[in-house]
Amino acid sequence: MNPQRVGILGGGQLGRMMVEAASRLNLSVTILDGPEDAPAKQIENTQAHIPGAFNDPAKIRELASKVDVLTVEIEHVNARVLAEIEAEGKVKVHPSAKTILTIQDKYAQKQHVVAHGVPVADFMETPDETAVEGAGTLFGYPFMLKSKTMAYDGKGNYVVKSKDDIKPAMAALSKTPLYAEKWAPFVKELAVMVVRRANGEVRSYPMVETIHKNSICHLVIAPAQVDGAVLEKAQAIAENAIKSFPGAGIFGVEMFLMEDGQILLNEIAPRPHNSGHYTIEACDTSQYENHMRAILDMPLGSTAMKVPASIMVNILGSNESMEDCYAPCHEALLADGATIHLYGKKACRAGRKMGHITVVGESMMQAQARLKPILEAMEPGVDRQLSLRPLVGIIMGSDSDLPVMKVGAQILKDFGIPFELSIVSAHRTPLRMVEYAQSAAKRGLKAIIAGAGGAAHLPGMVAAMTPLPVIGVPVKGSSLDGVDSLHSIVQMPRGVPVATVAINNSTNAALLAIRMLGAFIPGVLERMDDYMKKMETEVMRKVDKLDTVGWEQY
Amino acid sequence: MNPQRVGILGGGQLGRMMVEAASRLNLSVTILDGPEDAPAKQIENTQAHIPGAFNDPAKIRELASKVDVLTVEIEHVNARVLAEIEAEGKVKVHPSAKTILTIQDKYAQKQHVVAHGVPVADFMETPDETAVEGAGTLFGYPFMLKSKTMAYDGKGNYVVKSKDDIKPAMAALSKTPLYAEKWAPFVKELAVMVVRRANGEVRSYPMVETIHKNSICHLVIAPAQVDGAVLEKAQAIAENAIKSFPGAGIFGVEMFLMEDGQILLNEIAPRPHNSGHYTIEACDTSQYENHMRAILDMPLGSTAMKVPASIMVNILGSNESMEDCYAPCHEALLADGATIHLYGKKACRAGRKMGHITVVGESMMQAQARLKPILEAMEPGVDRQLSLRPLVGIIMGSDSDLPVMKVGAQILKDFGIPFELSIVSAHRTPLRMVEYAQSAAKRGLKAIIAGAGGAAHLPGMVAAMTPLPVIGVPVKGSSLDGVDSLHSIVQMPRGVPVATVAINNSTNAALLAIRMLGAFIPGVLERMDDYMKKMETEVMRKVDKLDTVGWEQY
Repeated sequence: MNPQRVGILGGGQLGRMMVEAASRLNLSVTILDGPEDAPAKQIENTQAHIPGAFNDPAKIRELASKVDVLTVEIEHVNARVLAEIEAEGKVKVHPSAKTILTIQDKYAQKQHVVAHGVPVADFMETPDETAVEGAGTLFGYPFMLKSKTMAYDGKGNYVVKSKDDIKPAMAALSKTPLYAEKWAPFVKELAVMVVRRANGEVRSYPMVETIHKNSICHLVIAPAQVDGAVLEKAQAIAENAIKSFPGAGIFGVEMFLMEDGQILLNEIAPRPHNSGHYTIEACDTSQYENHMRAILDMPLGSTAMKVPASIMVNILGSNESMEDCYAPCHEALLADGATIHLYGKKACRAGRKMGHITVVGESMMQAQARLKPILEAMEPGVDRQLSLRPLVGIIMGSDSDLPVMKVGAQILKDFGIPFELSIVSAHRTPLRMVEYAQSAAKRGLKAIIAGAGGAAHLPGMVAAMTPLPVIGVPVKGSSLDGVDSLHSIVQMPRGVPVATVAINNSTNAALLAIRMLGAFIPGVLERMDDYMKKMETEVMRKVDKLDTVGWEQY
Repeated sequence: MNPQRVGILGGGQLGRMMVEAASRLNLSVTILDGPEDAPAKQIENTQAHIPGAFNDPAKIRELASKVDVLTVEIEHVNARVLAEIEAEGKVKVHPSAKTILTIQDKYAQKQHVVAHGVPVADFMETPDETAVEGAGTLFGYPFMLKSKTMAYDGKGNYVVKSKDDIKPAMAALSKTPLYAEKWAPFVKELAVMVVRRANGEVRSYPMVETIHKNSICHLVIAPAQVDGAVLEKAQAIAENAIKSFPGAGIFGVEMFLMEDGQILLNEIAPRPHNSGHYTIEACDTSQYENHMRAILDMPLGSTAMKVPASIMVNILGSNESMEDCYAPCHEALLADGATIHLYGKKACRAGRKMGHITVVGESMMQAQARLKPILEAMEPGVDRQLSLRPLVGIIMGSDSDLPVMKVGAQILKDFGIPFELSIVSAHRTPLRMVEYAQSAAKRGLKAIIAGAGGAAHLPGMVAAMTPLPVIGVPVKGSSLDGVDSLHSIVQMPRGVPVATVAINNSTNAALLAIRMLGAFIPGVLERMDDYMKKMETEVMRKVDKLDTVGWEQY
């Protein structure tokens, strides 16, 4: 489809998954890496791959002589040689060598993004012990002491808890220049993959939540189960950061979500990233294919998720046998919606990325349930509580409506549907109502249940400001027997519907919301079927009892 | 994950996609096929593949000596040799050689499935011209004269339109023994992929609709846009057929849907099939991975679709250049949700399968819209009308309700939502109502709009027999101003909700149904947003007019 030959520096799992995407497009790819059986080389049998180190100038030159475009699957390459090749102009280098050089040095990386208005935790250069002490004074303890270069998977980071830690920290990180960073007590770690075409066009993938274990990525949850406003903000920050770097390719942008809702960029990877593995099964176009498209200046593919929910878990090597790594895989074979990716690595050692498993689901509830046995095989006895974004919002005009509305809440709880419940008054908190209605779809809600009595404006007013279905529960007041609320809620003008249920019947409101979910989430539809069968059984039991006991004794 | 080594007879695109699935599971695969650069060999660089023909006994023996399990990607192999190897018991053969032998001979295949109670078009053996004439007398004209063996992509079939065609038909098909088949004037062609584990466990993929062009598979639509009852019946027939064959592996089952709803099995392929390519992007586990799992006696993966809709289109070679094949691919690069699979074939010739494109979508409407430019690049000027299964059902108690209900129908039409509209009376056609309500979810409906006046039982009774959301429209009768209908519809007992809208307001019922769809189909949500903005604009225009004209002249 594209005659340009690609050379990849590095033949690990990221290169392997790039090759997989490239083969489907009939693209020619040559790998530079040491082992004959490097993961990427195993699935590419049309080229003569190059044995050698991806930081060996001669080997990089050899690869360059055979291809039209050079790219990397790891940033710790000899970027100086790439810069020379790029300058010579015969072979393209993506991302640009300059970008790789800047990103290789985490201090330079931070300086670069800050200059482009991207928020990061405070940081400072620490050329010597005095400077490190100064960082302690400026940032307080704990703070992070970090290697500027060659850092990954937590290596090259040191938490300085007190002044006494300074000497051991500097000793531990003595190999590279250092910088200090203010402690960022985040509530969640987020990541966004961004793909950039050479012309500057960027597309970002949905924001994900990453959970690390021993500083190595453990779980990636897509989409992140956070407020939609955070999602938009983080995505904008990630896109802006990547727009500032020359060259094309995919980038992983890791961020911290702070307690106050602030988002800080943590670091950038100029290549496909662990937090984007899920895109193979869960998105229209994988990060790997979009990387190939970007570096060849082909149109970028859609980055949208094609499934409602996905969770990726890394399979890490242990000091035990390979069989040990396979334990979660055997569970994954039994789990619906789970796909196993093994990287063809022969030797297993602690912390080595041997493969990953991606689970998809019709809902995040389902994805979590499917993941559970896989995680249990991986970390027996650990009960990971993963968060769920609410699918249904219950609101009411006043806490006096709560006794009526909580019956519906209980139904949602019984069905295992994540929901939120709050007071939103049309007349006393009109601006809050506007905010609530306008943000509802973005925040991930699928339906809103609104209860109100008397003039009962809440359901209709919310329906006027959201495209979501709104279910209205007329709450009976002290006069008019609830008919006032019923007519206020049901008699909406043409153009703005409210799904009205019976007076005080929040049970039916909840069941209606569940039916709406069930129309698209088969597992929920099944539970509704069961619920209806159970109702039937209960009545049939009464039929039997009436027959047995007789109507006079009943 | 599994130490058994696999050998595949044939290295074309089906073998290639098997290899892709196998690599992800770190399975060892060796290919037997002629060309050094056979599609499957291109992406497998860990084994020494065998050059040679997949019907050459010596070569098959050579492959068998290197592996633990033999399988095929094409049925036209030397099954006699496979039977010998299987009988020797050292190497497993999946599917069983006996199965391949039976399926190779389409006449034997038909006899076999008929013996297992599977419906097929009438057929008879035609060893000579007299027998062919007898078929004409028995079946009438036209009928099909078919080669028993070596038939694929329409090759080996001849439509005998009259007695005069018999001689030319027999001449054209002179290479193999023949049989005759009664003409089956189908309304649709359906296909189901079924995977069978050696222990007899089978799982079937969702039924798809296939559209052929020049007897070669052109489009595969998943799920088939037909009534859910047909779906269940076809799936059961396919599963029963495959249960009757010994051995493990994936099978493609092609069927005809006749005008009267009858389903006839057409033919079976004992391997991955073109009609299952879509499973790579659209299902939990692809047909290729499930084939590998089945032949290695690993647990079968879920066959469920993970996306709502998918359409696959084949990229066929032409007598023009390769660039000609790439034209639809260039469109696919621009289409959201489209994935290109090229098979690495170097030479292009008319009808050769060069690759395929799979489009996925949040709805079949979207998948069709995404496919359109790709199809246009492939067959300029051809306007393919693909069918859409209704998402919303509108029903009413009487045709007297139609004037009220058709306003809502028009809204659905304007939004481009596929719907059905009919009369279902609770009191006059109670059994039809039961049938309608109980089959609704299975048939693919996501919401039901029911209009009724007076006692107005229809919405509530339907809601009592479906887990789907039911929207009730109270229709105003000649007395009580519609309040009778309103209260009948809205005051449902706890347990069975009806989403009630204002009296006579089928507009809002339709908008509510659209909001329910929009909560899960982002494209529909966007259209609802636009609709709401348009309403706002219209009112703002009136504001301006009132300002300009003044209230007295307005």
